[in-house]
Amino acid sequence: MADPRFQPSRPFAAVILAAGKGTRMKSDLHKVLHPIAGRPMLGHALAAVDALAPAAKVVVVGAGREQVERAVDAGIKLATQEPQLGTAHAVAQAEPALADFDGDVLILYGDVPLVRPETMARMLDRLDQPDAPAAVVLGFRPADPAAYGRILAQDGLIAKMVEYKDATPEERAVTLCNSGLMAVRASDLWPLIARVGNANAAGEYYLPDIVMLAAAEGRRSAVIEAEAWEVAGVNSRAELAAVEAEWQQRRRAEAMAAGATLIAPETVWFSHDTKIGHDVIVEPNVFFGPGVSVGDGVAIHAFSHIEGATIASGADIGPYARLRPGAEVGEGARVGNFVEMKKARLGRGAKANHLTYLGDAEVGEGANIGAGTITCNYDGYFKNRTAIGAGAFIGSNSALVAPVSIGDGAIVAAGSVVTRDVPADALGVARGTQEVKPGWAARFRKAMLAKKKAG
Amino acid sequence: MADPRFQPSRPFAAVILAAGKGTRMKSDLHKVLHPIAGRPMLGHALAAVDALAPAAKVVVVGAGREQVERAVDAGIKLATQEPQLGTAHAVAQAEPALADFDGDVLILYGDVPLVRPETMARMLDRLDQPDAPAAVVLGFRPADPAAYGRILAQDGLIAKMVEYKDATPEERAVTLCNSGLMAVRASDLWPLIARVGNANAAGEYYLPDIVMLAAAEGRRSAVIEAEAWEVAGVNSRAELAAVEAEWQQRRRAEAMAAGATLIAPETVWFSHDTKIGHDVIVEPNVFFGPGVSVGDGVAIHAFSHIEGATIASGADIGPYARLRPGAEVGEGARVGNFVEMKKARLGRGAKANHLTYLGDAEVGEGANIGAGTITCNYDGYFKNRTAIGAGAFIGSNSALVAPVSIGDGAIVAAGSVVTRDVPADALGVARGTQEVKPGWAARFRKAMLAKKKAG
Amino acid sequence: MADPRFQPSRPFAAVILAAGKGTRMKSDLHKVLHPIAGRPMLGHALAAVDALAPAAKVVVVGAGREQVERAVDAGIKLATQEPQLGTAHAVAQAEPALADFDGDVLILYGDVPLVRPETMARMLDRLDQPDAPAAVVLGFRPADPAAYGRILAQDGLIAKMVEYKDATPEERAVTLCNSGLMAVRASDLWPLIARVGNANAAGEYYLPDIVMLAAAEGRRSAVIEAEAWEVAGVNSRAELAAVEAEWQQRRRAEAMAAGATLIAPETVWFSHDTKIGHDVIVEPNVFFGPGVSVGDGVAIHAFSHIEGATIASGADIGPYARLRPGAEVGEGARVGNFVEMKKARLGRGAKANHLTYLGDAEVGEGANIGAGTITCNYDGYFKNRTAIGAGAFIGSNSALVAPVSIGDGAIVAAGSVVTRDVPADALGVARGTQEVKPGWAARFRKAMLAKKKAG
Repeated sequence: MADPRFQPSRPFAAVILAAGKGTRMKSDLHKVLHPIAGRPMLGHALAAVDALAPAAKVVVVGAGREQVERAVDAGIKLATQEPQLGTAHAVAQAEPALADFDGDVLILYGDVPLVRPETMARMLDRLDQPDAPAAVVLGFRPADPAAYGRILAQDGLIAKMVEYKDATPEERAVTLCNSGLMAVRASDLWPLIARVGNANAAGEYYLPDIVMLAAAEGRRSAVIEAEAWEVAGVNSRAELAAVEAEWQQRRRAEAMAAGATLIAPETVWFSHDTKIGHDVIVEPNVFFGPGVSVGDGVAIHAFSHIEGATIASGADIGPYARLRPGAEVGEGARVGNFVEMKKARLGRGAKANHLTYLGDAEVGEGANIGAGTITCNYDGYFKNRTAIGAGAFIGSNSALVAPVSIGDGAIVAAGSVVTRDVPADALGVARGTQEVKPGWAARFRKAMLAKKKAG
Repeated sequence: MADPRFQPSRPFAAVILAAGKGTRMKSDLHKVLHPIAGRPMLGHALAAVDALAPAAKVVVVGAGREQVERAVDAGIKLATQEPQLGTAHAVAQAEPALADFDGDVLILYGDVPLVRPETMARMLDRLDQPDAPAAVVLGFRPADPAAYGRILAQDGLIAKMVEYKDATPEERAVTLCNSGLMAVRASDLWPLIARVGNANAAGEYYLPDIVMLAAAEGRRSAVIEAEAWEVAGVNSRAELAAVEAEWQQRRRAEAMAAGATLIAPETVWFSHDTKIGHDVIVEPNVFFGPGVSVGDGVAIHAFSHIEGATIASGADIGPYARLRPGAEVGEGARVGNFVEMKKARLGRGAKANHLTYLGDAEVGEGANIGAGTITCNYDGYFKNRTAIGAGAFIGSNSALVAPVSIGDGAIVAAGSVVTRDVPADALGVARGTQEVKPGWAARFRKAMLAKKKAG
Repeated sequence: MADPRFQPSRPFAAVILAAGKGTRMKSDLHKVLHPIAGRPMLGHALAAVDALAPAAKVVVVGAGREQVERAVDAGIKLATQEPQLGTAHAVAQAEPALADFDGDVLILYGDVPLVRPETMARMLDRLDQPDAPAAVVLGFRPADPAAYGRILAQDGLIAKMVEYKDATPEERAVTLCNSGLMAVRASDLWPLIARVGNANAAGEYYLPDIVMLAAAEGRRSAVIEAEAWEVAGVNSRAELAAVEAEWQQRRRAEAMAAGATLIAPETVWFSHDTKIGHDVIVEPNVFFGPGVSVGDGVAIHAFSHIEGATIASGADIGPYARLRPGAEVGEGARVGNFVEMKKARLGRGAKANHLTYLGDAEVGEGANIGAGTITCNYDGYFKNRTAIGAGAFIGSNSALVAPVSIGDGAIVAAGSVVTRDVPADALGVARGTQEVKPGWAARFRKAMLAKKKAG
């Protein structure tokens, strides 16, 4: 979704490299489809790009193209890099898809999911400054520069880029490192890429080489800096977990700054699209899957698992509430422990306090759903709906066999199996009659103890 | 509650400043009422003061006075500071409430909840030493002194107090910082406060100024030091979470030192008043709300949520046990997974192992509550009680419609809806009779598959 | 279990010291029996030793010998140290048990549970080098050397071992510390031990003294180094938690490296024997007790508690699934929220999605277990089995009173209490008939409101 704060002055296309094999992930799932905060890494990169309203998006894939194809929107172009001969070679595969495009090109990575739209906008903005740098490279200063390539720059202009292994001790002392992200005008990019050679140990075509190729022609490139966490890449499940943790930590801080209490922030997991109001209290250990919206003043107790749900203001949720997609909890309503909702609406002030399953159901305002109530929504072939009227009272341990409707103000007696509609203000009872057999238990006990002794 | 270890030699009054607007909390709840470990911050400060048996307690509030009034005990005096013109001005508002008091005055903050009674006692004790300091200031040495005001002192006597912005580089190098807490004799405090001016950038009356005013008259003030964590203040939800984390970490260490095993201490949350015995084992992810007492040798399994409950020695709880206020679990009794108890007593050795709701119930010794048992305690208007005798056996998936009583040694057949009492040693059965319709399922399947095909 | 990678060249015996009182644990349980990752500490030490196929294992115990005896295998010899006069004295108690043994002796500690087999193998290997050191001492370099005894060594040969309190400032600056673990030939060990004296402040016989005694005869001892985490000892519950945390962190990293996604690794707890496949996804807050095996491609949702269970590939578990010993989940089967399984098999593709208890049960392929289904497996004296056929459909809120069998393709109507078998393809219904009483609820409401008013 375009964000008015980050609109570059010239049209741009995004090229997202996603052809790495991801061997260290040890997964049958394509690396860039592994999720962070409930959204594939590639989706994060694409969403950030979308904030800048790109003219085109090209994803360069290798093996697993079909998986990526199924996961992305129709408007996104896919290019294939096969075999994989380096990053410059990867970018080159995007050229046909951008044949008619002559704006700026932003080169990103599908496994570097946290780059912010404002950082991308700063790259494009720098590219479009009057001094017209040949390329804009995104640098960063990691806590431990380790073996990253170094950028030697002065006043934001690059003097040299050098791989760690080729660097002198002085060069290694430089803390500005190359993230690999770049912005280059299309009219510069393709000719430069074409000239990159592969005379190196790995026999690969390296994208950063274009900086030195341009420099040889007297054109300087610029560097701008990102936060180190933004350009963290994912090559293993441990790095996936580290990036997830970074994302979560930032999201938690945002939620608190916006007025939510997280008693133990490190135990609350948000999804990429979680919306959360103010004066919300979240107890420890709450998991938000995608598609959740939480109104003001809601209390979410510990051990709740919430996805695809809308919770209106003042509702009280959990502990141990499981809200699945299509759950809608009305204002001031209460969903208690061991209660599951799926495609179900709980009206304003209604209560389902304990051990209940509400599936494909509509519960009216102020209704009370007793402990152990089950909507029997599935007959093995079709899902059927249950309608419960406003102010109705469903006695505990009842089974409502859908399709069925309980009228406004009706009462269902505890332990009933309701198969036919109960009209408004009526009582529905559907249970066996009680028999008492005096002394039976004493005799049973005796017999059983004898049996235990015997056997 | 007065603690004999910390009784000051002279009477003292506590003045607790709580008039800050708390804007950064973004909350409709007064800042000092936000809870730490299940108790409002102000409550922590008051409880610590109570350990010293104060002669009077005055809380100075601004906006939201009514909220604070509702939250504190009747014996606490409230003073209003409106408008808020600085800390000296805030303290001045407490003077009328202490008009007849001439002991020591301890000045605290409602949003600095972790100060220990022993630290407060040390402040008062220092004030009452023969050298009679004009004031005792509580200093601390933060990991990052940042922009805190500095205290220049020698041998515990203050030479100068200086705001960070006014400090020289040498003064900034001093690591002893001002927490804002003070102890001053009433007879010194009010005259000094009256002389504090507001000729500063903010136009505010600052409490620390009294130290320099006294010094100008030749009276020295003393500084004593607190641990940095004690004087951490809360101005945002992130700071609230940080103070909560600090509190929890200390409480967990205490619990372990006293002989409880916390497999993953960082995932156990205590309340301010949790009592826990020795040789208790707590699995990961357990939440204790207020009012819990746990006996020796208890095992609490993962994902349990416990508040207002008493658990006797040798009981086995969870995983996924939800004990609500009024739950009492007897010696060696067992509360299993997805079991909720509320105002309910489970006798010695009794078991409620699975998927059960026990509300307003009494369960005798050694009784067995089958899986899926529900006490139907609410008729929409009144709560009614269920009594289950010693050694009774409640068959699975039964509903006990209260008020109802099951006698000692009685058996309720599985799936029964019990509406009338079952005498001791009797069997109660209340269910439908079983019919079998041969071939019905096969015909149903055929019809449904046809319908699916059609539609 | 012997590990072919770590087979020492000569026979060896392990002596494991476990006679410490463990006072700081404040526990009635013997210190070395406190578990890490679901296994007693002593069990960890023994399992690591077993990888090297020892000729004998001797555990030296003091008080609580019976507890240890009950906890260890029959093949392990126990020696008693009473009173406890130091580590050399403790080792001496093992001599009678090893009277006929003349290989190498490896001296370990029951409260140092994380030493790796490869480290032990390195110790023994060093002992058997041609230079024949008198002893091999295991050293380590802790982050904070604190008061540990220091090892002064050059080229791996020990010049001096010195207690911290006796060390000069220069010696204290040495970072190599003594873990207490040693390897010594039996033929060297017993004579050296016999010569250790107790002329020290504590009047104890210290094991490290044998190094200096040998040196006095011109025989050098060697040091090899372990990672500091390996030799962490446990003297308190806080240290127990720290060692557990260390173990868990390593195990999580291993699981991720092997191809499992842990969304929040710090909230997943493994047991010592957990087996986990590749492309397994584990949501936050999952607890694995002992005896769990998880196949490839399984998803385990948040808040699941799993012990003694086998989960086949492609299964979907939780959230809030509780699998107890004997649970077997078939390929592609689904165990949903608030579902407990115990000694129960869920066939391939079968589903138990909500609020269910399956105990002592067999569920056929593709069967569907409705919400709120309870197998009533216990009559107070015996456990009985429930058999559910392939493709069967159990309507919601049913109770299956075992022993009972539901045939292939049979249907049980929702809310039934099934006490007799339902043949294949038949329908079983066992519930009361429904009555509707028009207007009853309205009258009830009126009466109740009047009563509330009155009372």
